[in-house]
Amino acid sequence: MDKYVVGLDIGGTNMRGALLDGDEEQVDELKIPSEANLGIERLIDNLADFIDKIRGDKKIYGVGLGIPGIIDSTRGVITAAPNIKGVHNYPIRDVLREKLDGDIKLVIENDANMVGLGEWRKGAGKDVNSMIMMTIGTGLGGGLILNGQLWSGAHGMGGEIGHMTINSEGPRCKCGNYGCLETYASANAIRRMVSEAISNGSISTALGDRAKAARPGEIPELVMEAALSGDETALGIWQEVGKALGIAIASLQNLLDVDMVVLGGGIANAWDLFIRTAEDEAAIRGFDAPMEKLKIEKSVLGDDAGILGAGYLALQK
Amino acid sequence: MDKYVVGLDIGGTNMRGALLDGDEEQVDELKIPSEANLGIERLIDNLADFIDKIRGDKKIYGVGLGIPGIIDSTRGVITAAPNIKGVHNYPIRDVLREKLDGDIKLVIENDANMVGLGEWRKGAGKDVNSMIMMTIGTGLGGGLILNGQLWSGAHGMGGEIGHMTINSEGPRCKCGNYGCLETYASANAIRRMVSEAISNGSISTALGDRAKAARPGEIPELVMEAALSGDETALGIWQEVGKALGIAIASLQNLLDVDMVVLGGGIANAWDLFIRTAEDEAAIRGFDAPMEKLKIEKSVLGDDAGILGAGYLALQK
Repeated sequence: MDKYVVGLDIGGTNMRGALLDGDEEQVDELKIPSEANLGIERLIDNLADFIDKIRGDKKIYGVGLGIPGIIDSTRGVITAAPNIKGVHNYPIRDVLREKLDGDIKLVIENDANMVGLGEWRKGAGKDVNSMIMMTIGTGLGGGLILNGQLWSGAHGMGGEIGHMTINSEGPRCKCGNYGCLETYASANAIRRMVSEAISNGSISTALGDRAKAARPGEIPELVMEAALSGDETALGIWQEVGKALGIAIASLQNLLDVDMVVLGGGIANAWDLFIRTAEDEAAIRGFDAPMEKLKIEKSVLGDDAGILGAGYLALQK
Repeated sequence: MDKYVVGLDIGGTNMRGALLDGDEEQVDELKIPSEANLGIERLIDNLADFIDKIRGDKKIYGVGLGIPGIIDSTRGVITAAPNIKGVHNYPIRDVLREKLDGDIKLVIENDANMVGLGEWRKGAGKDVNSMIMMTIGTGLGGGLILNGQLWSGAHGMGGEIGHMTINSEGPRCKCGNYGCLETYASANAIRRMVSEAISNGSISTALGDRAKAARPGEIPELVMEAALSGDETALGIWQEVGKALGIAIASLQNLLDVDMVVLGGGIANAWDLFIRTAEDEAAIRGFDAPMEKLKIEKSVLGDDAGILGAGYLALQK
């Protein structure tokens, strides 16, 4: 009998997932609304529905859940999750165990950790043992694979690469710290840099006019387009993003000495606009010997990485 | 028959080590000059002599060596070691294997990694699974114990906590980077801060006069004494040290989520002068949930930590 698992990526708007067989091959996939804004009980009901629908008449060995937030994966608890209404220290693993067949293995991790696992198993990192994942979207999430194992911390709360300080006197971060990597390399960071360029009058007229008329969600795309058509302000913003990534990559490599850093998420689509700066900055700042061993690659799995990582972790359980 | 190992800590001036039995208990100890300034061949001869002397007529199972520098522990190579004359990509493990009985297991690691292992096995961290060691001396060395294993990197070059950037616009570091933790928290950092205070005239007269008359090696002790007698400049310097440690501890805990950070090395003897600032800064900057799980402790083994760690690693081999 084959061993089936469900890998799930839970977002604020949708939950996406797949049924995988024991060879980590995708058998089926599904996407339904998560309704996380309606509270955790509704989310749990949707999760149970999702698992029922996707398994059909197959027996499920395990379920892996990637959840955006601070996750205590050792206890199966959502410590904090800004995108799920009314959640604080919520024992999601125990609650789901009550709802589902008691034999099903349940593994809960921060979503970026699952993305890292997926890219390592099936994506850019499939030929290396140790890899750092950075998921650059609204914020910057991270996942650490050390010698073929996810390291999410002694209490499952680690991997928060976006909240390493790179400039202790830098901008205030949403987390309360100052100068986190995320304040320089994320969609939020790009919006901040555009706002500052508008405030201090250093923005080009063309970009400034378009940015003032745009919704916040459109700004990163707009800065990407402007840079591609040679706008100096926009090009400078991507260089700032690249520089910050380079500073962080050097620190991480001096500290962890891995084989590969993989960059994914929507912002990584601007690859050609920042990667050279990032590589140069990392080479200048990091120790030569470990930096020479390091590859920096773009993610290849996109949105599927988190699902595949979650399924893989459930299979390992 | 008992399983004996030698744990060795190789410094620029001396090599210190111990013979341990299979229970990691110390049977004998020895200290001889390393003569590292006379070149690697002399150091190797001294190492062979050391091992011969300390083993007497006992059969040795393994030898663990802690060496200051960038060590490729997977290949047993000293990549770079500023304190050993003429060493670059030197295959010390193979060379020693030729000199010693071929059955002896040889493990080579950066010295701070060995200190971390020792403090985790027998010292401040003996009751935890995951621990970060910071050895604060002339520079700042580090060692990472993750879930009961030393993580020294995919190529054995990791753990360089002192060379994480905490302020990308900070002072130039000896490693070529800017604003490394080591530029704020080390004996070298304290000397820099004293020099700057003298240059810009912000130093108290009493401390300034004493500092100008002192040798560089005496400066940290002098700043410790001055702070204990209430000197404002000196107290401010220790606060800078504490603040930098707090910034780094918050980044490390957001990233690695361990149970304990242990601070050792000569500078850690000024504990009461910086620890409160370090704890406060880390609590402000780090995520609440993992920070609440973290203990920050002073090393208890001092100079013996590296020897015990090296012996332990040889036993594990």
